[in-house]
Amino acid sequence: MFERREQVLFRHCDPAGLVFYPRYFEMINDCVEAFFASIGFSFEELHKSAAVPTVQIETSVVAPSRLGDELTLSLAVMRCSRSSLQLELNAYAQGEHRFVCNSTLVHVDGQGRSAPWPDALRAALTA
Amino acid sequence: MFERREQVLFRHCDPAGLVFYPRYFEMINDCVEAFFASIGFSFEELHKSAAVPTVQIETSVVAPSRLGDELTLSLAVMRCSRSSLQLELNAYAQGEHRFVCNSTLVHVDGQGRSAPWPDALRAALTA
Amino acid sequence: MFERREQVLFRHCDPAGLVFYPRYFEMINDCVEAFFASIGFSFEELHKSAAVPTVQIETSVVAPSRLGDELTLSLAVMRCSRSSLQLELNAYAQGEHRFVCNSTLVHVDGQGRSAPWPDALRAALTA
Amino acid sequence: MFERREQVLFRHCDPAGLVFYPRYFEMINDCVEAFFASIGFSFEELHKSAAVPTVQIETSVVAPSRLGDELTLSLAVMRCSRSSLQLELNAYAQGEHRFVCNSTLVHVDGQGRSAPWPDALRAALTA
Repeated sequence: MFERREQVLFRHCDPAGLVFYPRYFEMINDCVEAFFASIGFSFEELHKSAAVPTVQIETSVVAPSRLGDELTLSLAVMRCSRSSLQLELNAYAQGEHRFVCNSTLVHVDGQGRSAPWPDALRAALTA
Repeated sequence: MFERREQVLFRHCDPAGLVFYPRYFEMINDCVEAFFASIGFSFEELHKSAAVPTVQIETSVVAPSRLGDELTLSLAVMRCSRSSLQLELNAYAQGEHRFVCNSTLVHVDGQGRSAPWPDALRAALTA
Repeated sequence: MFERREQVLFRHCDPAGLVFYPRYFEMINDCVEAFFASIGFSFEELHKSAAVPTVQIETSVVAPSRLGDELTLSLAVMRCSRSSLQLELNAYAQGEHRFVCNSTLVHVDGQGRSAPWPDALRAALTA
Repeated sequence: MFERREQVLFRHCDPAGLVFYPRYFEMINDCVEAFFASIGFSFEELHKSAAVPTVQIETSVVAPSRLGDELTLSLAVMRCSRSSLQLELNAYAQGEHRFVCNSTLVHVDGQGRSAPWPDALRAALTA
């Protein structure tokens, strides 16, 4: 399981003083990007010849988060298929569950067609 | 059913030339905000004493969208409960289905506790 | 002079209830993009073989803007050189000056080297 | 002088593969926020009764930044007046100067009127 700290910053927050939910998806993407880098596949390398668009994503906000909160996001690979990947992310702060997210990414080639994960990347994703 | 045009702009797009999915959630929020305004309840009025955080949201990208695409987002109220609201949004461009989103908003008071929709707002939401 | 309406939306605003200044730069870029489209050079066409990065930008917030404010942005070409362009944008709401921005864009080729504006584009920019 | 590392992430980049300049202003704001926290004045505390809007900001992109670049932002206090603050930020990567930014922040009270910096905060800003 991969973990990443993310402090709730001013740019994340809305006039109600809570995290504006599109910013959760920025945090989630940053976490996925950091996870890929942690297993040796940086997004800058990956995107030279391919892409990994998120095609399905679902998020439940269990409890609101506020400016200054120190979130810990954890990411788990749920399933790695031929050319897709299912992830679950959970965020906690001060021992409280804040949000859960399930997403599906697809590996596509330079023309945007789904393409099998390269063997080394699949091995790293399922390690 | 409420409709809103949204052109895919430079700020929505990622290095792969596709809409970066957190930007879909900005478009979705803009559409919800325009819908509330269209029924007489602007967000600036609403947020003086309450808030309507999105607590659950699920989006499937049926087909990718690119810089310059002219999206039409349609919004339908699926269910209006005591203090929550279920919406479905669909986006189309050039006759093609681009994404579908189901979300749940909650009406909360100034202290962040769920509170019944004011009668006039509920009437407008379910009209 | 080119004009564009822009309503201050929820996604623009910070916990203090004011427009978060990085969002002004999104508005400014949207206005520049709409201006190029208005003279027949859409960003999607332009970016097939070139780019127009902003290399210098200065903004003064004369008066704050709030959720729901209806801004009118006006854009004027101040100078068009061989491969650069100087713009001035001003934003007004309710008869009040809200911000002024001066920026310099450069036309670069696919390798990121500054390149002369195509004749037709220069003619349109200086019309 | 305060320093902060910031990796260029996918969410910062545009279809041309470069940092989209409104994202520089998000990085700049994150750096200012981290600087205030580093001297003992977190934005969440500060914003309980006041705000520090940026009223003037100027940025020159000396060289473009790309996905994966490891930026180091340095922040220096240039001048601290009764209720305003002038900052200069510089960003470097791989020994190359990437951008320079000069900004002016104003300390305002809960009603949005400029107000003198609290003594402890001024002392920390000018230390």
